[in-house]
Amino acid sequence: MIPRTMTAVHLTGHGGLEKLVVRHDAPVPTPGERQVLVRVSAAGMNNTDINTRTGWYNQSVSSGTTAEGGQRGFGVSEKGMGDWEGRLAFPRIQGADAVGYIAAVGEGVGVERIGERVVCDPYIRDPNDIEGFASAGFLGSEYDGAFAQYTVVPAVNALTVPKDLPLSDAALATLPCSGGTAMNMLMLANAGAGDLALVTGASGGVGTFLVQILEALGAEVLAIVAKSKMEAVARLGARHVIDRDGGDLVARVLTVTGGRRISLVADVVGGSQFSDLLKLLRRGGRYVTAGAIGGPKVELDLRTLYLKNLTLFGSAVYLRETLPRLIDLVKRGRITPFSTKTWPLSDIRAAQSEFLEKKHVGSLVLLPPGETH
Amino acid sequence: MIPRTMTAVHLTGHGGLEKLVVRHDAPVPTPGERQVLVRVSAAGMNNTDINTRTGWYNQSVSSGTTAEGGQRGFGVSEKGMGDWEGRLAFPRIQGADAVGYIAAVGEGVGVERIGERVVCDPYIRDPNDIEGFASAGFLGSEYDGAFAQYTVVPAVNALTVPKDLPLSDAALATLPCSGGTAMNMLMLANAGAGDLALVTGASGGVGTFLVQILEALGAEVLAIVAKSKMEAVARLGARHVIDRDGGDLVARVLTVTGGRRISLVADVVGGSQFSDLLKLLRRGGRYVTAGAIGGPKVELDLRTLYLKNLTLFGSAVYLRETLPRLIDLVKRGRITPFSTKTWPLSDIRAAQSEFLEKKHVGSLVLLPPGETH
Repeated sequence: MIPRTMTAVHLTGHGGLEKLVVRHDAPVPTPGERQVLVRVSAAGMNNTDINTRTGWYNQSVSSGTTAEGGQRGFGVSEKGMGDWEGRLAFPRIQGADAVGYIAAVGEGVGVERIGERVVCDPYIRDPNDIEGFASAGFLGSEYDGAFAQYTVVPAVNALTVPKDLPLSDAALATLPCSGGTAMNMLMLANAGAGDLALVTGASGGVGTFLVQILEALGAEVLAIVAKSKMEAVARLGARHVIDRDGGDLVARVLTVTGGRRISLVADVVGGSQFSDLLKLLRRGGRYVTAGAIGGPKVELDLRTLYLKNLTLFGSAVYLRETLPRLIDLVKRGRITPFSTKTWPLSDIRAAQSEFLEKKHVGSLVLLPPGETH
Repeated sequence: MIPRTMTAVHLTGHGGLEKLVVRHDAPVPTPGERQVLVRVSAAGMNNTDINTRTGWYNQSVSSGTTAEGGQRGFGVSEKGMGDWEGRLAFPRIQGADAVGYIAAVGEGVGVERIGERVVCDPYIRDPNDIEGFASAGFLGSEYDGAFAQYTVVPAVNALTVPKDLPLSDAALATLPCSGGTAMNMLMLANAGAGDLALVTGASGGVGTFLVQILEALGAEVLAIVAKSKMEAVARLGARHVIDRDGGDLVARVLTVTGGRRISLVADVVGGSQFSDLLKLLRRGGRYVTAGAIGGPKVELDLRTLYLKNLTLFGSAVYLRETLPRLIDLVKRGRITPFSTKTWPLSDIRAAQSEFLEKKHVGSLVLLPPGETH
């Protein structure tokens, strides 16, 4: 039986943790045509939740454009003057990582799907948008998301996983945003065997997946992390692990590699080390980014870009095959998603406080009322 | 009969025009194994000649590395600490654009090639370097080039063109560096029909090729040039032409396109307009650069790169198929290379002075003694 109301976290505006309000009387949404209602059993937390809440996506890059309520950048009119700033409606239920069970289906979806265990692709697209970029919106940003007992997604976004897959729903809840971002970065940059790959922020949600996926693909991984997390990241399979705070990054990396330069940088940090990362790349090397927690504004020398034949990839909206391929790696046991710690959904403020301390390795996951695994 | 000495221009060190010294007693080189001697009939001039002479390629991007005699960035050891700075030996005969006739062959090359009309690929590679990046050196930088009556290149670099192709050698001499750079940029960025493409510096050597090739591929071209050159660039086939100095670039471009954003930026200018160029790109858009005459150091907001799913390509070393494909377009009459003005090789200082004034549209070409077309 599906209740009429549910527990959900409302984001009531841009700001601090006080903008996250736990409600126990939120209406349970109704699935429309070609949609499914998912009973959420676990919901991961990600930097993007914080960025959206604080309005970080809302800061103008250069002159001329400021957005009201801007965020992850979706829903921007191609004809508008905006850049990547979008518009966010409040209250909004955040949460990109919806894992759970199909509880009801809308028109055009077979009832046999009810009961399926699903991992949801957070990028929601107009089915007529062939390329899939222009129309893509993000679960928990343009659409109410997973910080609730129930959420609605298009049926095509609810990817089935076997019920007997020996992984908790909390572990699976690290896949949509963290795992998908890592997978998409590596697919864009055509990562593979033979790559000497450098991963920044390797202890984080995306970083731990980058390390695991790269090793599964046969690449040699050099991970940069805080000293306290070096051992944990080495256990994930990184061939080389470097203290991010040890000084002269270029010299230390080249010492570790025996002078070999890097073929692929997968960066979620950015900031002041950006030019060192490009310096470490070999000719024809690739750099891919999906975040900039260390600071988004960097100096680029265009000579470095063209004289070294570099390619710089930006990754946000996934390719349609990104999550299916990631789930395939999980099913085949090539990578093992894990949740580092779970919190009750109602404790989201405490959970985000701990998340922001960045003392953990991997992903923190919220569990709606009644969910324990 | 091949003489023992020839007229050639020696670059005697980094500096001004005074470093270009015309010699009439330079030794004619001897082709080695798998090499050919080319009698040069025409040699184009390019920004890269100037950049190498002034030492612009020699400026360190960030801390820690300064090169002696550095230039275009080739010959850098993968194990070295250098970034894109290379080493240049003086005296050096510059000139990337060698067009002419095979005058002699080295061991391993059939004598039937003597007399062939050839356009030379300026990227000289170790044949064992599969990828072709690490070993690539540039004609006129690591190797003596085309500012001479004779030059030596690997036989594989001397691409045959029909003698009855109704184009002057001076026109063909715009292909290796300017045409090849444009073609390589567009191949890397996968340009094609359906692209709404913006070209900066559209009146220059590379820019005029970008406009012509893009239109030949079926793209819709928006060219940015100085006001005095707008008419000439429109005649090359650019659908839209915009005055580079008319103020608010973003607003003016969107007015011209009816609000449509750009899918591909082909930039050889860089400088202060860089962030406006990225702002104009649509989601999933591509930016490709092969030069930065307007200034190499730019600010990049990594959020723009990743939230808009952009890709930034740097183009220097060509793909092996770049020049053959370009020559094929020329043979089929899809694009028409042209030299704007020719100068005797011995007048190189005056020719470069005029080149630097940037009042011309297209390419300026030097003709060795005895050559008139």
